[in-house]
Amino acid sequence: MDKLLKALKKIVGDAGYISGEDVASRPARWGTNHMHQAKALLRPANTQEISEILALCNKNKQSVVTVGGNTGMVGGTVTSEADILLSLERMNKVIEIDPVSRTLTVEAGLPLEQAQTEASDVGLLFPIDLGARGSATIGGNIATNAGGNGVIRYGMMRDLVLGLEVVLADGTIISSLNKLIKNNTGYDTKHLFIGAEGTLGIITKAVLKLKPAMPSLSTAFVAVDSFDAVLALLARADRELGGKLTAFEVMWENFYSFIKTDPTMRAPAFDDAHPYYILLEATGGSIDEDADQFQRVMWSMFEERLVTDAVIAQTMQERDNMWAFRDNVTHLFTIENLIGYDISVPQSHMEAYVSSITGELEAKLNVPKLIIFGHLGDGNLHILVSSDRPEDVNAILYGALKDIGGSISAEHGIGLDKKAYLTTCRSDEEMALMQSLKKTMDPNNILNPGKIL
Amino acid sequence: MDKLLKALKKIVGDAGYISGEDVASRPARWGTNHMHQAKALLRPANTQEISEILALCNKNKQSVVTVGGNTGMVGGTVTSEADILLSLERMNKVIEIDPVSRTLTVEAGLPLEQAQTEASDVGLLFPIDLGARGSATIGGNIATNAGGNGVIRYGMMRDLVLGLEVVLADGTIISSLNKLIKNNTGYDTKHLFIGAEGTLGIITKAVLKLKPAMPSLSTAFVAVDSFDAVLALLARADRELGGKLTAFEVMWENFYSFIKTDPTMRAPAFDDAHPYYILLEATGGSIDEDADQFQRVMWSMFEERLVTDAVIAQTMQERDNMWAFRDNVTHLFTIENLIGYDISVPQSHMEAYVSSITGELEAKLNVPKLIIFGHLGDGNLHILVSSDRPEDVNAILYGALKDIGGSISAEHGIGLDKKAYLTTCRSDEEMALMQSLKKTMDPNNILNPGKIL
Repeated sequence: MDKLLKALKKIVGDAGYISGEDVASRPARWGTNHMHQAKALLRPANTQEISEILALCNKNKQSVVTVGGNTGMVGGTVTSEADILLSLERMNKVIEIDPVSRTLTVEAGLPLEQAQTEASDVGLLFPIDLGARGSATIGGNIATNAGGNGVIRYGMMRDLVLGLEVVLADGTIISSLNKLIKNNTGYDTKHLFIGAEGTLGIITKAVLKLKPAMPSLSTAFVAVDSFDAVLALLARADRELGGKLTAFEVMWENFYSFIKTDPTMRAPAFDDAHPYYILLEATGGSIDEDADQFQRVMWSMFEERLVTDAVIAQTMQERDNMWAFRDNVTHLFTIENLIGYDISVPQSHMEAYVSSITGELEAKLNVPKLIIFGHLGDGNLHILVSSDRPEDVNAILYGALKDIGGSISAEHGIGLDKKAYLTTCRSDEEMALMQSLKKTMDPNNILNPGKIL
Repeated sequence: MDKLLKALKKIVGDAGYISGEDVASRPARWGTNHMHQAKALLRPANTQEISEILALCNKNKQSVVTVGGNTGMVGGTVTSEADILLSLERMNKVIEIDPVSRTLTVEAGLPLEQAQTEASDVGLLFPIDLGARGSATIGGNIATNAGGNGVIRYGMMRDLVLGLEVVLADGTIISSLNKLIKNNTGYDTKHLFIGAEGTLGIITKAVLKLKPAMPSLSTAFVAVDSFDAVLALLARADRELGGKLTAFEVMWENFYSFIKTDPTMRAPAFDDAHPYYILLEATGGSIDEDADQFQRVMWSMFEERLVTDAVIAQTMQERDNMWAFRDNVTHLFTIENLIGYDISVPQSHMEAYVSSITGELEAKLNVPKLIIFGHLGDGNLHILVSSDRPEDVNAILYGALKDIGGSISAEHGIGLDKKAYLTTCRSDEEMALMQSLKKTMDPNNILNPGKIL
């Protein structure tokens, strides 16, 4: 064992050290058999140990890749055998919950689902939610600025982080565990680290903003016959439900008809095919009044023909069936040569964008399968393409984004996988500014090197 | 005229140049007769001109202070005769409103009120609102991360900025006019400039997030007999109004009884004195249903004795009277030797904090007048003290903040006036990180030098 590894092992102790050979039993990418490689995996017990690790690695120009729940989608934590892998899996404690100020302070290794449970135990809500909630950690959610369901009402992870403790590349601990909604005292440096995918510092603790838990829940699955009606429905529902709209998930016909082929689905069945289906959900303060209001708003949309057909969930089971339909990732993964995209487009350009890429994919690549769905309330589309020519599909999907101010990554981040395309949506000046920040914060380029930039 | 001034005049032309002597007719601080001083005031017509101005000033190590509507509260745009003053008053146009994607793109010199009007003309809402709305500019609101009323529901300015165009110290134009809610493509550099008070770059354009305008409006003025009841009322109202709570403004008895001495006020009159009064407001999607629900929620609070007495506004005039009472700055300014504070405290520490400073101000300084009110839903208190010993008052109010994670500036910023106290709520490591960012972004220290840091 070389000198550096010995010194690192001394910092974290036996319980915190897993040697290079054993690291290879851990998958580097979720859902694949691509395994981690590293000189060693360090499992520090506290912030002080991370500070010592980074001070030492910085002096030795040793690269450090921090991993959370390993559920990222863009190769943001892929390592080579030259890297040190750092996991916060032992730093997974709740530090404080303050139900009066409505804050939750946690170590970064805490899984998202445990943060949700901690909040709901005191009648509050931590609103970030995504499929990987059981494994994904708060630190990983912050480093990737996670989105998921509920963004239309509650925002992204960035909007729900009040304070951070971070260790910089040289080992300096920046403790800004702010619990305040309003705090205009100089630069709000936490935003540097949110969404930076571990390239500017290692997030060790966080103060999260909690929201009141809402007692009422109303869910509908509706069929809509034009994209204009989809947009009108979004605007109307958002206004008329008065701030209670929590999800507005649109499924194109190609999504609906494909998921329907899964025999386990208890989907709302409609007589005819429709170009768009929408799962909308609202939560509010009054169980009786809200159900009535939701029904009335839906009925008025139906009378005005914005909605062609609609099912309102009458039981929790019906509601869960609707979401199971929307979230049926497993069935989607049965498609061969599947390439997944996570793009954002301003809603005003969305119909034209989808029509343009659909035409190009058919004409140029004769794509057998195209599936579109997404968090339309946030402008975020997930597009699945079955093709053995990923580069050509990239060119079509990403190429059409530039002129309309679209984004190649709405919520998954850049990591390794989208790095080559970053300049399609960021200018030379923006790239130079990012490079300059990286150089200032991590002059030896030891933090997750080669990711994003 | 020296060579640099000649060159600057050439960039902006006659219409864009006001010489040093004429600058002195412009007040440097709102509501005072403290006038601006500067070598010249530049009024550029577009971003390109600002880029040329900064490139030239950077080369000549010439300081540049950017001013918006001149309504700041902390001396953030105070100048000396050695500075160049830059105003975006000619860059005040609406560039685009996109009602479908719900974005408003403007030049930074646009007054806040015009942005609000632009949004409401298409049935949307730009929710930042504050007393100086007629003069304060969007650029200034962003540079100071403005708060104001409505933060409890809609967040601060930071939460409502989607994209920025900024000119860096060396003249580089960073155009990130993003219109997307979700865009995880590398570092979100706009947050560097939001709240940085013009010290890291000059904001020239912005994309603002719009919200649906809410048709219903319910307002109540209530009396509450304990701080525990204030907190319980906040939690209950926020949950039971189901996301519709828009303002929760608390007035201590000392505020209420002082404002009542203004004979122009049509305040809700209560039979007895109470320790706390609260103005709460909710907006929602349904005029009839929401009024009923608001009344029912208020009634249940009254029955459970959280609220001791209550008036619900029955007309718009009654509602406006309630807000006029809360917003009666003019009457407050009649107090002699008035020192104003804008602090944040976690709600869980608020009662103890107020009790402690009240005791100290009485015991040590024999303060004749202390007035407390604020956006309690956000943890933000405005505290007014009448004293001719400002340093001693600072020591008491700021000193007690440190241990409870409070902030010396909730929404006004640091500027010049609070600079000496910044380290009471930011650590040495945080200060060093801020210094390092300033040095990277503005190595010659030409942008609003001496402010914040």
